[in-house]
Amino acid sequence: MSKKKLNVGIIGYGFMGRTHANAFRKVSNFFESGHVPVLKAACGRDQAKLKAYADKWGWESTESDWRAIINRSDIDVVDICTPNDSHAEIAIAAARAGKMVMCEKPLSLNGPQGEEMVREIEKAGVANMVWYNYRRVPAVTLAKQIIESGKLGRIFHYRAKFLQDWTINADLPQGGAGLWRLDAAAAGSGVTGDLLAHCIDTAVWLNGSLDTVSAMTETFVKERVHSATGKKEKVGIDDACTFMGRFSNGSLATFESTRYARGHKALYTLEINGENASIAWDLHDLHRLQFFDYKDEGRFRGWRSIHVTDSDHPYMGNWWVPGLQIGYEHTFVHQVADFLQGLDTGKFASPTFRDALETQYICDAVLESAATGSWVNVPKVS
Amino acid sequence: MSKKKLNVGIIGYGFMGRTHANAFRKVSNFFESGHVPVLKAACGRDQAKLKAYADKWGWESTESDWRAIINRSDIDVVDICTPNDSHAEIAIAAARAGKMVMCEKPLSLNGPQGEEMVREIEKAGVANMVWYNYRRVPAVTLAKQIIESGKLGRIFHYRAKFLQDWTINADLPQGGAGLWRLDAAAAGSGVTGDLLAHCIDTAVWLNGSLDTVSAMTETFVKERVHSATGKKEKVGIDDACTFMGRFSNGSLATFESTRYARGHKALYTLEINGENASIAWDLHDLHRLQFFDYKDEGRFRGWRSIHVTDSDHPYMGNWWVPGLQIGYEHTFVHQVADFLQGLDTGKFASPTFRDALETQYICDAVLESAATGSWVNVPKVS
Amino acid sequence: MSKKKLNVGIIGYGFMGRTHANAFRKVSNFFESGHVPVLKAACGRDQAKLKAYADKWGWESTESDWRAIINRSDIDVVDICTPNDSHAEIAIAAARAGKMVMCEKPLSLNGPQGEEMVREIEKAGVANMVWYNYRRVPAVTLAKQIIESGKLGRIFHYRAKFLQDWTINADLPQGGAGLWRLDAAAAGSGVTGDLLAHCIDTAVWLNGSLDTVSAMTETFVKERVHSATGKKEKVGIDDACTFMGRFSNGSLATFESTRYARGHKALYTLEINGENASIAWDLHDLHRLQFFDYKDEGRFRGWRSIHVTDSDHPYMGNWWVPGLQIGYEHTFVHQVADFLQGLDTGKFASPTFRDALETQYICDAVLESAATGSWVNVPKVS
Amino acid sequence: MSKKKLNVGIIGYGFMGRTHANAFRKVSNFFESGHVPVLKAACGRDQAKLKAYADKWGWESTESDWRAIINRSDIDVVDICTPNDSHAEIAIAAARAGKMVMCEKPLSLNGPQGEEMVREIEKAGVANMVWYNYRRVPAVTLAKQIIESGKLGRIFHYRAKFLQDWTINADLPQGGAGLWRLDAAAAGSGVTGDLLAHCIDTAVWLNGSLDTVSAMTETFVKERVHSATGKKEKVGIDDACTFMGRFSNGSLATFESTRYARGHKALYTLEINGENASIAWDLHDLHRLQFFDYKDEGRFRGWRSIHVTDSDHPYMGNWWVPGLQIGYEHTFVHQVADFLQGLDTGKFASPTFRDALETQYICDAVLESAATGSWVNVPKVS
Repeated sequence: MSKKKLNVGIIGYGFMGRTHANAFRKVSNFFESGHVPVLKAACGRDQAKLKAYADKWGWESTESDWRAIINRSDIDVVDICTPNDSHAEIAIAAARAGKMVMCEKPLSLNGPQGEEMVREIEKAGVANMVWYNYRRVPAVTLAKQIIESGKLGRIFHYRAKFLQDWTINADLPQGGAGLWRLDAAAAGSGVTGDLLAHCIDTAVWLNGSLDTVSAMTETFVKERVHSATGKKEKVGIDDACTFMGRFSNGSLATFESTRYARGHKALYTLEINGENASIAWDLHDLHRLQFFDYKDEGRFRGWRSIHVTDSDHPYMGNWWVPGLQIGYEHTFVHQVADFLQGLDTGKFASPTFRDALETQYICDAVLESAATGSWVNVPKVS
Repeated sequence: MSKKKLNVGIIGYGFMGRTHANAFRKVSNFFESGHVPVLKAACGRDQAKLKAYADKWGWESTESDWRAIINRSDIDVVDICTPNDSHAEIAIAAARAGKMVMCEKPLSLNGPQGEEMVREIEKAGVANMVWYNYRRVPAVTLAKQIIESGKLGRIFHYRAKFLQDWTINADLPQGGAGLWRLDAAAAGSGVTGDLLAHCIDTAVWLNGSLDTVSAMTETFVKERVHSATGKKEKVGIDDACTFMGRFSNGSLATFESTRYARGHKALYTLEINGENASIAWDLHDLHRLQFFDYKDEGRFRGWRSIHVTDSDHPYMGNWWVPGLQIGYEHTFVHQVADFLQGLDTGKFASPTFRDALETQYICDAVLESAATGSWVNVPKVS
Repeated sequence: MSKKKLNVGIIGYGFMGRTHANAFRKVSNFFESGHVPVLKAACGRDQAKLKAYADKWGWESTESDWRAIINRSDIDVVDICTPNDSHAEIAIAAARAGKMVMCEKPLSLNGPQGEEMVREIEKAGVANMVWYNYRRVPAVTLAKQIIESGKLGRIFHYRAKFLQDWTINADLPQGGAGLWRLDAAAAGSGVTGDLLAHCIDTAVWLNGSLDTVSAMTETFVKERVHSATGKKEKVGIDDACTFMGRFSNGSLATFESTRYARGHKALYTLEINGENASIAWDLHDLHRLQFFDYKDEGRFRGWRSIHVTDSDHPYMGNWWVPGLQIGYEHTFVHQVADFLQGLDTGKFASPTFRDALETQYICDAVLESAATGSWVNVPKVS
Repeated sequence: MSKKKLNVGIIGYGFMGRTHANAFRKVSNFFESGHVPVLKAACGRDQAKLKAYADKWGWESTESDWRAIINRSDIDVVDICTPNDSHAEIAIAAARAGKMVMCEKPLSLNGPQGEEMVREIEKAGVANMVWYNYRRVPAVTLAKQIIESGKLGRIFHYRAKFLQDWTINADLPQGGAGLWRLDAAAAGSGVTGDLLAHCIDTAVWLNGSLDTVSAMTETFVKERVHSATGKKEKVGIDDACTFMGRFSNGSLATFESTRYARGHKALYTLEINGENASIAWDLHDLHRLQFFDYKDEGRFRGWRSIHVTDSDHPYMGNWWVPGLQIGYEHTFVHQVADFLQGLDTGKFASPTFRDALETQYICDAVLESAATGSWVNVPKVS
């Protein structure tokens, strides 16, 4: 069976540029599809860094202007790995040029911008996906299977946290290499768009829509040197954000994120409490799922620590043997695998731009609530 | 050295009646003091049950009316273990009669009632204490010592949860033996006064005052048979309560409590994130404290699981040898030990009625915020 | 119903003197029986310490010679808490005097001495018990229930460890207060009789007889000051002991104990692997049992962490409510409760002297194997 | 800087064929070296399977006879991934042909065979390495760094286990695809050469030589259908093996391995207890290292759970960002990276054939001891 080549043009060569390149290179070694990604072109501003990146990962060519990627007829899919403030412009241009689009999360700077992206991408009718990679952690996918099996019954609670500690140092500048996430102009928001967006995407996937939220944000370090001016300037991002809310299914939401939780590097945790069973997971031990089933015989009930490495666990039959764990980067491989399989079948992999718009609405509502001190209803994706 | 007898009259023989009786009986076997509690009299409504309780625990006499306890000249301290709606009346009467008072938590049904209790107890000038026993878990006391050592630096976050699952069954009635906590008239509130009050007391002790809160409550089971009427009636308590807030020291608060978290029996957890170190603890493994110290050498940093059973750990030198854990009931023994030592020294053990009033104000603010959907400022204890 | 008093005379007021006194005092507050222990007399050599002990715990009288305890007509049961080298003499004298006997573990210095004790106690026909308290940890008793349910199927492996670190300091003397365990004359052996005896007792209870063993011992600190001479003398005990063996049921044994495992205070762990299920437990979190059931649905299998605090868990219905853990001392309360219930029913609580003799034989075989470097068969208790 | 190509010829396309191919493909994306592996040729018996394997991984050519690989002038390094009984013949032929050799573990069927391999490879003077990949788990390498720092002080204990449960099913045949490990002729031994060899290699690396051992083996399922004959035949491998021993540094060894530990998929654990500190690790959470430092301040001592994902942790600076774990396959990437760096510097990466011979001697001694019931001294690698 001859396979169809899928020529990829990537824009951005930073951290996400590496995770995506790795995924494109590995996917065909582990997953079956009628499509094979080809690392066709990489685009970035700093040509020396771009060259080094392209050489290291085997991108066939480089471009210095993202428009060149979009204009190239030999590119099938545009993969956007740039800071958040350029997602919309690039994605819309790519869609209009008839390219498939893969876009790093969050989709956009805000809901209205996201709406326009959805409108354009759907008008173009091209395959599209947002890289909310944590849906593809096998343990999280297994959680989804448990939920779909109905084992939980009525849901009472969904709680999630994303705790980091890497910005406690007040000497870190805002902006600059690796630090655009501290610059409100580039990032749109702080932990809300960066970390809570992940938590929200998973939550909506696992537990459905959020109707209403009430939030609180804080900026612990009020001024940081800005890389553009070299001077101390007011910090515009949220260092921490907590919100509570109500899901459409009647369950309660408790969410928190911060970059000031000393001792936690990237501790994304989630827990769902249902009438009959509960599920918990955390990113620091991403290969395990905690599962409590009230239907187990009384004296012998306990939280099960499932080591999600068996061949009948999601995605795991394609990797090694039971007991041997995979890691973070594999979630991106899974996402590419699902994207390719979506092309095989014509049913696009989730989350699409439209799926990701809901997260954008929730982030907007969260930030609005934090600003006003009031509860805010989340608009429905039409 | 001859010791002074401290004659105790207890009111209530339920679950707390047992934990207190046990504490009074054991304390002198393990802790030194110039005072020795004597189990003088027990009071309760059901005389058969009262008799069985008094026999089992060695109470010297029984009374059917709490006023009799207060009127007896041979009683030094009145210990209140009744449902929340009778705390104020009994405590005030006892104070007026010149008795020392130990009162189960929460202090009162609400802040104003608590204010009156504080006024009366302080007018009487008698020793007084509220049984917020979790302050005396050795691991929690060790957390207090770490905080007081200054190891944490600036505090960014305080989060606490108290998760249970025992009321998921919709067939449980409200009111009746062991179930008065489901009856709003007797309990005042649901998880807020029952469980969050514990979390709040510890938080205020460890992290100082809360300035402002925003809360959400839910009653998942809307109607339950009432034990008094035998009919289904509207449930008045909060089954779950989440709130966020701001402490006076600038740190953020995230609190949650529920009785609908399947798989968690009594999971009280707390975590404090400081600039230089963090602390975490949970009631399901109460003999351990988690501690992360950023000042440890970089490559070898990790959360330490401290097995709080050494002789230099709080209270533990009075028990067994390193490695041998104690349990829940010991926290009450510690509280009595501290109460007795307070009598020895004249400096009353905390939390006093006044200390506990702050928790009452916070609970009121939480419930008001949940009702109004607005942020509510917490009054200061004058 | 009037209860029968059981007058206890205790010999020894050290660490075990405290755990037993506590058990005798508490048992009737928590467990039902037709018998009530009375703390009648305490005996010890240092009269000042003895007096303090007796006062603290409420022993009605004291004796300076253990023979006086045995000769008193008002004593029903003699409880032996002395170092190992005096167990036999006291127990045999007590039995001949018609007293019931409770004896601290290990039963004796060696098998032949134990045989004589069994012979005498059975000739006397009195109730007798050895304080192997870990059988009464609720999680361990739950393990026994799981095994008896047949859930494990054919057993392949039984492994146990008892790791401590308190004798690493080479300046500790051998002999003297609290340190007789380092003196071979008083203790008989080192970790073998002290720690492995516990592991062996539980193993034989849970998994049946051991047929044959091969062992290795080591004394890391070769000389220590002896408290009797004040001089450095050769250390005669084993600091560490490892052995392997075969159980009668065909499963393999792996045992290890040491007092040189830095970081472990009293880490007794055990694990049983059966064809269909496995069980694991450790003393540092004694309120939990780990249970893996292969019959659980494949994708959702995992080790269950059972929080052994429910009312249908062994012994736990007599304590508090679900989620609230008990500790080390409770195992002694349970043992007294079972002893009393044995008197109620006439079926003596285990382990009897005869039950404990098997552990003695295994310890002897272990030490012989370590000395000779050969496999040694374990004699059967006739 | 132009890089030197290193043409690889691999023999065997099974599980190890996949882990190695992945490592050769990924190494240059993550690690720097003057050498770049090229997937030149793959060799195997079943040509259809070989073709599929070569296509999936991008091997440029295939061969059906391993001698062809060795005879090809365009092959620089021969990578042996065949069952154990063919390692010696292939490795020796390759060495004689002047090829570098990478050989899957264990090195050989036994010590004498290994000696010949060492002799030949050293005579040839070619780079050589055995794939004991667990040395390159970052947490294990970090353990090595801690040991080399001297933090542990005098070592008292080294214990290791490797527990699996995949052969409990008595219907599994011996021999055939994926099951040659159950066939004594192909595997040489059971868990000893397969699993204990890993434990021993790490132990010798971390803790030095073993002087003497005493072992016990068991074959739980005595007969299995043999794939070659289709009939039930006696099983020749050890299903389980336990041994104890003494290291040259005076510490005690306790090792165990089995494929009959229900609930454990691939639980390799190790622990080292030193005078001043201890270390523990397990393969089921391979990204964590447990570390206890007695020099920490007394009250705040506890086992640290180090999440080995920081940029200053071994190998981790080449992967992602703190908090994001890697998995099993990465250990092979690290091993190739070190092999390439060894070529850069001329100092070959460990373990060489000579290093691996010690493990072979220990396995032989273990099996001899199990057969004879006596202690066996381990020969020194000359």
